[in-house]
Amino acid sequence: MLTTNPFDDDKLHEECGIFGIWAADDAASFVALGLHALQHRGQEAAGITSFDGKHFHSHRAMGHVAGNFDRDDVIRKLSGRAAIGHVRYSTTGESGLRNIQPLFADLAEGGFAVAHNGNLSNALTLRKTLNRRGSIFQSSSDTEVIIHLVATSSYSTQLDRLTDALNQVEGAYALVVLTEQGLVACRDPLGIRPLVMGRLGHSTIFASETVALDVIGAKFVREVEPGEVVLINDDGLRSFKPFAKAAARPCIFEHVYFSRPDSIIEGSSVYEVRKNIGAELAREAPVDADYVVPVPDSGVPAALGFSQESGIPFELGIIRSHYVGRTFIQPSQDVRHLGVKLKHNANSALIQGKKIVLIDDSIVRGTTSVKIVQMMRDAGAREVHMRIASPPTKHSCFYGVDTPERAKLLAAQMNVEAMRDYINADSLAFISIDGLYRALGDTRDGQNPQRCDACFTGDYPTALTDVGGKDSGSLSLVASR
Amino acid sequence: MLTTNPFDDDKLHEECGIFGIWAADDAASFVALGLHALQHRGQEAAGITSFDGKHFHSHRAMGHVAGNFDRDDVIRKLSGRAAIGHVRYSTTGESGLRNIQPLFADLAEGGFAVAHNGNLSNALTLRKTLNRRGSIFQSSSDTEVIIHLVATSSYSTQLDRLTDALNQVEGAYALVVLTEQGLVACRDPLGIRPLVMGRLGHSTIFASETVALDVIGAKFVREVEPGEVVLINDDGLRSFKPFAKAAARPCIFEHVYFSRPDSIIEGSSVYEVRKNIGAELAREAPVDADYVVPVPDSGVPAALGFSQESGIPFELGIIRSHYVGRTFIQPSQDVRHLGVKLKHNANSALIQGKKIVLIDDSIVRGTTSVKIVQMMRDAGAREVHMRIASPPTKHSCFYGVDTPERAKLLAAQMNVEAMRDYINADSLAFISIDGLYRALGDTRDGQNPQRCDACFTGDYPTALTDVGGKDSGSLSLVASR
Amino acid sequence: MLTTNPFDDDKLHEECGIFGIWAADDAASFVALGLHALQHRGQEAAGITSFDGKHFHSHRAMGHVAGNFDRDDVIRKLSGRAAIGHVRYSTTGESGLRNIQPLFADLAEGGFAVAHNGNLSNALTLRKTLNRRGSIFQSSSDTEVIIHLVATSSYSTQLDRLTDALNQVEGAYALVVLTEQGLVACRDPLGIRPLVMGRLGHSTIFASETVALDVIGAKFVREVEPGEVVLINDDGLRSFKPFAKAAARPCIFEHVYFSRPDSIIEGSSVYEVRKNIGAELAREAPVDADYVVPVPDSGVPAALGFSQESGIPFELGIIRSHYVGRTFIQPSQDVRHLGVKLKHNANSALIQGKKIVLIDDSIVRGTTSVKIVQMMRDAGAREVHMRIASPPTKHSCFYGVDTPERAKLLAAQMNVEAMRDYINADSLAFISIDGLYRALGDTRDGQNPQRCDACFTGDYPTALTDVGGKDSGSLSLVASR
Amino acid sequence: MLTTNPFDDDKLHEECGIFGIWAADDAASFVALGLHALQHRGQEAAGITSFDGKHFHSHRAMGHVAGNFDRDDVIRKLSGRAAIGHVRYSTTGESGLRNIQPLFADLAEGGFAVAHNGNLSNALTLRKTLNRRGSIFQSSSDTEVIIHLVATSSYSTQLDRLTDALNQVEGAYALVVLTEQGLVACRDPLGIRPLVMGRLGHSTIFASETVALDVIGAKFVREVEPGEVVLINDDGLRSFKPFAKAAARPCIFEHVYFSRPDSIIEGSSVYEVRKNIGAELAREAPVDADYVVPVPDSGVPAALGFSQESGIPFELGIIRSHYVGRTFIQPSQDVRHLGVKLKHNANSALIQGKKIVLIDDSIVRGTTSVKIVQMMRDAGAREVHMRIASPPTKHSCFYGVDTPERAKLLAAQMNVEAMRDYINADSLAFISIDGLYRALGDTRDGQNPQRCDACFTGDYPTALTDVGGKDSGSLSLVASR
Repeated sequence: MLTTNPFDDDKLHEECGIFGIWAADDAASFVALGLHALQHRGQEAAGITSFDGKHFHSHRAMGHVAGNFDRDDVIRKLSGRAAIGHVRYSTTGESGLRNIQPLFADLAEGGFAVAHNGNLSNALTLRKTLNRRGSIFQSSSDTEVIIHLVATSSYSTQLDRLTDALNQVEGAYALVVLTEQGLVACRDPLGIRPLVMGRLGHSTIFASETVALDVIGAKFVREVEPGEVVLINDDGLRSFKPFAKAAARPCIFEHVYFSRPDSIIEGSSVYEVRKNIGAELAREAPVDADYVVPVPDSGVPAALGFSQESGIPFELGIIRSHYVGRTFIQPSQDVRHLGVKLKHNANSALIQGKKIVLIDDSIVRGTTSVKIVQMMRDAGAREVHMRIASPPTKHSCFYGVDTPERAKLLAAQMNVEAMRDYINADSLAFISIDGLYRALGDTRDGQNPQRCDACFTGDYPTALTDVGGKDSGSLSLVASR
Repeated sequence: MLTTNPFDDDKLHEECGIFGIWAADDAASFVALGLHALQHRGQEAAGITSFDGKHFHSHRAMGHVAGNFDRDDVIRKLSGRAAIGHVRYSTTGESGLRNIQPLFADLAEGGFAVAHNGNLSNALTLRKTLNRRGSIFQSSSDTEVIIHLVATSSYSTQLDRLTDALNQVEGAYALVVLTEQGLVACRDPLGIRPLVMGRLGHSTIFASETVALDVIGAKFVREVEPGEVVLINDDGLRSFKPFAKAAARPCIFEHVYFSRPDSIIEGSSVYEVRKNIGAELAREAPVDADYVVPVPDSGVPAALGFSQESGIPFELGIIRSHYVGRTFIQPSQDVRHLGVKLKHNANSALIQGKKIVLIDDSIVRGTTSVKIVQMMRDAGAREVHMRIASPPTKHSCFYGVDTPERAKLLAAQMNVEAMRDYINADSLAFISIDGLYRALGDTRDGQNPQRCDACFTGDYPTALTDVGGKDSGSLSLVASR
Repeated sequence: MLTTNPFDDDKLHEECGIFGIWAADDAASFVALGLHALQHRGQEAAGITSFDGKHFHSHRAMGHVAGNFDRDDVIRKLSGRAAIGHVRYSTTGESGLRNIQPLFADLAEGGFAVAHNGNLSNALTLRKTLNRRGSIFQSSSDTEVIIHLVATSSYSTQLDRLTDALNQVEGAYALVVLTEQGLVACRDPLGIRPLVMGRLGHSTIFASETVALDVIGAKFVREVEPGEVVLINDDGLRSFKPFAKAAARPCIFEHVYFSRPDSIIEGSSVYEVRKNIGAELAREAPVDADYVVPVPDSGVPAALGFSQESGIPFELGIIRSHYVGRTFIQPSQDVRHLGVKLKHNANSALIQGKKIVLIDDSIVRGTTSVKIVQMMRDAGAREVHMRIASPPTKHSCFYGVDTPERAKLLAAQMNVEAMRDYINADSLAFISIDGLYRALGDTRDGQNPQRCDACFTGDYPTALTDVGGKDSGSLSLVASR
Repeated sequence: MLTTNPFDDDKLHEECGIFGIWAADDAASFVALGLHALQHRGQEAAGITSFDGKHFHSHRAMGHVAGNFDRDDVIRKLSGRAAIGHVRYSTTGESGLRNIQPLFADLAEGGFAVAHNGNLSNALTLRKTLNRRGSIFQSSSDTEVIIHLVATSSYSTQLDRLTDALNQVEGAYALVVLTEQGLVACRDPLGIRPLVMGRLGHSTIFASETVALDVIGAKFVREVEPGEVVLINDDGLRSFKPFAKAAARPCIFEHVYFSRPDSIIEGSSVYEVRKNIGAELAREAPVDADYVVPVPDSGVPAALGFSQESGIPFELGIIRSHYVGRTFIQPSQDVRHLGVKLKHNANSALIQGKKIVLIDDSIVRGTTSVKIVQMMRDAGAREVHMRIASPPTKHSCFYGVDTPERAKLLAAQMNVEAMRDYINADSLAFISIDGLYRALGDTRDGQNPQRCDACFTGDYPTALTDVGGKDSGSLSLVASR
């Protein structure tokens, strides 16, 4: 069986994107558009919940936003002037369907819908306690823990109950919550996962990235701040800071790969930062070559930066098919590297006899780097140099990113020279962690890093309660959720 | 209703891609892979017919190759060591299903399956005659005319009957035909539509483009020549030239847009030719600007050529979403240019305050050029210059390309200055027809052009029997077949 | 795998029901209702073709009328004031879909749609000739032969061409044909298959049985006569008798099993005839018993007749489930007669210790008679006597009824005593062929029987050209069409 | 829109059937067969949950057992030697899916699956309390109340927690519960809903009716007693009686209509009881007529009893179609009584000029009685007498039967003479409540009736907490759950 997605299989996957809107006619149609712009953050399932002033309406489905939420009948049912939505990676089957967000519960105080980007690092511990007290879980999602903490809280208002719940959880969360009392957006005290606020006419919008504001023509207002809880309802917008103060640690990988290049994070263009990384890489690890060739499509901005800094021409040495399938039947005859070729083809007429620098954003397992270097050699490349626009990925993420278990991370198993030999490149270099901070316009503070860069450095910003405080390398189930 | 395909709507569409293979175990699995690589030539329907030495097996479906022909159960039923396949644009419904190729007929001499890329310009005339003689048509496809001509031919062998049939048709055709006597590939006397031959071990392959050979690791052998009929069976390969000799006129638009950039046509890399066109355009119509910005994705190679020739940096000023949907519900609030933004977003941080050159491959109706220039202006561009990598498209194609009726072709209605004004660009230039030939390494012979360039020049290489010999501008039904 | 249809598997199946209507608003909705009432004549596929004065519209589907033709969107598309329809047994898959009637062809003289109940006994012979002359067949249906004969006829009007075609065919046919010139209904010269005419307001209706008139409240007018061709259009109704005169031979099995009990055939109530058969059977083969028990549901009228004649009480000794499934997984534990029990259950409290007479309409293979007798014994019956409301079925039908090949007909293999032993009954009797005619109010003329009773007697009323004139017992493919 | 189910629309509907099996290989395949035999108790949704010693597996679907649970892939996934299942009436949509039973919860003590036949008359009251304490409900089913009572019980074993829960509920329930500790079957203290126990080899089975034992060849052992809790696991079978003692009040309508005629309830054959009712009716309300005609199919046994007692011949005056559809498009022309005719047709040849007695099991709204009497008159009946095999239905059921609100029950609005006039019958009679008890071999004790006959008498055997203790006639939502 041959997939057309061979390279994507070797990427870290952002687990979620979220979107909420308050005070808009046909709120759900805006959410559908916003989720479509956030589709790259979670491609396996999507859901929208709306509130029409009396009833909540939900639709959740496996698959893309397009195909599920571009249908008139679906959107018409999601009536109301407030709505939230979610895209996610998910598993298949009935239980999978139950895990699709927004999760909804009919609490004694009224309906409560939540969409969550992130991961709670003490969810299992809390779940066991709640279960023993009689709470019945319907999903395997850590997000449901938040709902049961709200349901069983001794506080009286929904907002106080939510704050009470969040004070008990640990880890990463950007949330949009829809209740009969208003729309709530909040971000964990470290601000690990992103969340921005926008405005369109009289409507207020929250979204994981600015591109979701762009698609509906909304103006960017500001980021929701780390540790901030924002409530918007007909009485206006109020902001709370109910958590203990902490230095922010936003995820650095958003700049490297997760966010779309046309998004703006913390005031910086993702496209420009990626070009900077490429330029920095050209200075840190220069190479004599004929062409700079990006691994499409995520390597393109860094490759442009590398090309402009080094003066080596940028060329499309790998052509990507726009048509994706799950699997094809392997013909009986032996066909070399067929899996790779279904999605990418060497531009052989260009590559033949040339020295090339391949630019990719990261190496996770390394399995497909092997294949793409070989594809270049089969096309007649004289030399193949690999440059990676992030430091070696050595540690699992416990904050909402789908990482393979540590034992499968190539950089956790071998040094750079061994990796070079493994992928059969003529040279291999990664940008340094300090170079990466430089590309962001920062100088890394080794004692208190300004970002969460744990996947590169192992410096986790929270206790990891469920896994006993450390990335053991074998707790694949927890780590990969 | 908002589509995510706003730009693609304003392209000419190749109507078909074909693929055939002889002497391969699991022939149909190779055809599925080859068709996947040809998917850009026809995205609305696909079909495969195989022959197992005794029976023919067919599967045809609306939709992409992936999703229909990547399923084990489908491929297993298409048993046999010979198979042909087809991708096409098509209409919906039952009648649409009947038009999906390969078409198959159970003739007195045995099964006959045909896959056709092209269009017959005397099909309606022939159809009427056949109908009067008692032939019953099952589809509205011009290809079925060929089958009835074969069925009623007075010759005795399938090959002679096929040659007899082809001698009566006029227009463009590249065909693969599967019979109990072997696999036949042929190309009309002018070679308007492309067809190449390849080899993998003992298997012989025919395909519309070389990328379909690449995907299965087959070697390119040669093109099927204009006017050539090739028969391959267990007795080996034989070549015939049964038609009156004529100077070849292969379609020039294959180089401009239809073919994949990694294909090789008539010995030239499509990618290199497109870069040459961009460079030629930079010389013919230079401009003072900060950035060269391609309209993704088809404008990229020409933009690289323009950038390298002019020294103006190549930048991604427009970011394309990878996720496609049919239609989204328009929110009630007015949202400017929403349709365009679903698939493309301006990289505003880059564009702001800059002079840019937009490079696109062609302008058909011009409707989306208007929107994309405006998107650049909304993003803050100081000046927007448009450069087009083909001459103005002024005439309909009658040879298998889906063109709008003449009245809707922007270049048929106004001159370049009026077009510039219409799309609101600061300047607009098209490559000249001679410049296009130069990019191909040729000098255009105005008396006997070496290519079919009728869509630019109106110089049609065949009689247009069904439309009375001329592009009347109103026969949209016929032109768009 | 266990089917819930064990008894139905051992019945002869009528292959088709047809219905046509002229001059009715929403003609297709009447056809849908009529076909629903004729569903028992063909349960595997259904189709309707309408004519709106300009265009023909068709919808054909595997499955029942309900589920396919009770949908608003389907019926709305079948616009027009004239329509015909068809229900049939059919095979699965794409080729199956092509065999669903009405068949339609776009002839030089205009559209031509036909729905056929019956079977042509020289179809293969005609097909070969047509194929050699260049006619391309799209289905494996004998009905398509008629269309090609019409298409290639040298006559000029559609009606003359149809008559010309019918003069060449041999066998059984009741047809409704829809053309731009009107609706045609016809019946073969022997009138083997039934066809009645009705009227509702200004609308004229043709249908296989009177129940299809009842359902729409139409009045029965008369039967279409054997050898009659009726044309109805805006000029009124005309009747033709273009064939050589012959004595009628309508199918006797319509009375025994095919027709619904509430239909009227040739002036007789099917229900009354079946009761008569039961009474005749009670006289011909009396038995001492406690209860008369019908095999549900087809045995009920004969059982009532037997009970009333014999004075033995009629009781429901077998309860039938109304819920049908295709197959259930056999549990691992041995479960006796599970297949039978899925659809029928013994009324054990009643049967225990009693002598019963089971009444069934026919025995085909005998496989399920074995099981049902055993079910009665397992329920504690003291004696089980079997009485069959038709003579032994010894010969295949070549006129549109799905018969197993001769070798599988129990009565073709053994005499009555051997059959009794095989099914393990205490006694077994069939009604005599003369008794069956008596129940119909006739005396059978052994030289020139007044009915087609070939399945009982082997006396076929036509030459059987395709099978060399006789029921050879091995030509299962032909016989079962 | 015309339904083919016009008569069924005017019946009371049993809401559920349940089935459980312990210690059987492929337990789920037995459950599928058992549920198929119980399909008449709930036709809109079905579900099965199995336990394989480690994990629970569930599949639930809208629609019949056949079509959903006769598929190999579905049954294979439901692995294990213990399983329970449920058929029900239900609503459509996502929330509908969540209401399909068995309901399952992952409690702290392990998995807990429950299938429930009945209705709790204090469910709303309990639900509000639980909700306020933090329990989150996933369905609108009263059954989920039981699960939350179990989850929050202060007892320690699953069985004690279940008993604790059941001690708090009021109303009717027959339950099968599957836990990691064994299979539990229980019946409310009044035994309102039925539940029987059977045995097949070493397997123990619980089911709503004996027909579900018959289908798999299991032997009937005994009924689960009112107020009994039976636990079966690898330690054997244990019986408990944890509730306060009360006189049993099993539902009398099971004999009249709900149960299949081949089931045995409390030692009596349902078929025999229904025949007795018919005979009793013939004595209570004799009539001079030519034929006794059952309203198919539920009126058949009572009609046979009436016929045998009165000596008036039993005849099929109404023929029922076996093919069911949801709705057909009404043709534009006026067609009288079309809805009724889709499913039933008068056997006019029989009825014409005759005096008939129609036998039906009950009258609910009376809407279709009107139509069927008219159908008989249209067919030419001289006199139409109606006899009903149950007393007038005057009160709603709160114990798991879908009754229309009181205001729509014909017998709650008018006396028998007014009803006769309304349905336009020549005479109308219902069996008396005492006559009904006589048919069951009992004499009704007016102070303490031996059955629940509240739908006829208004004598409810429990407090009706949720509706304030009485059938108010307007609480349709609650009553019809």
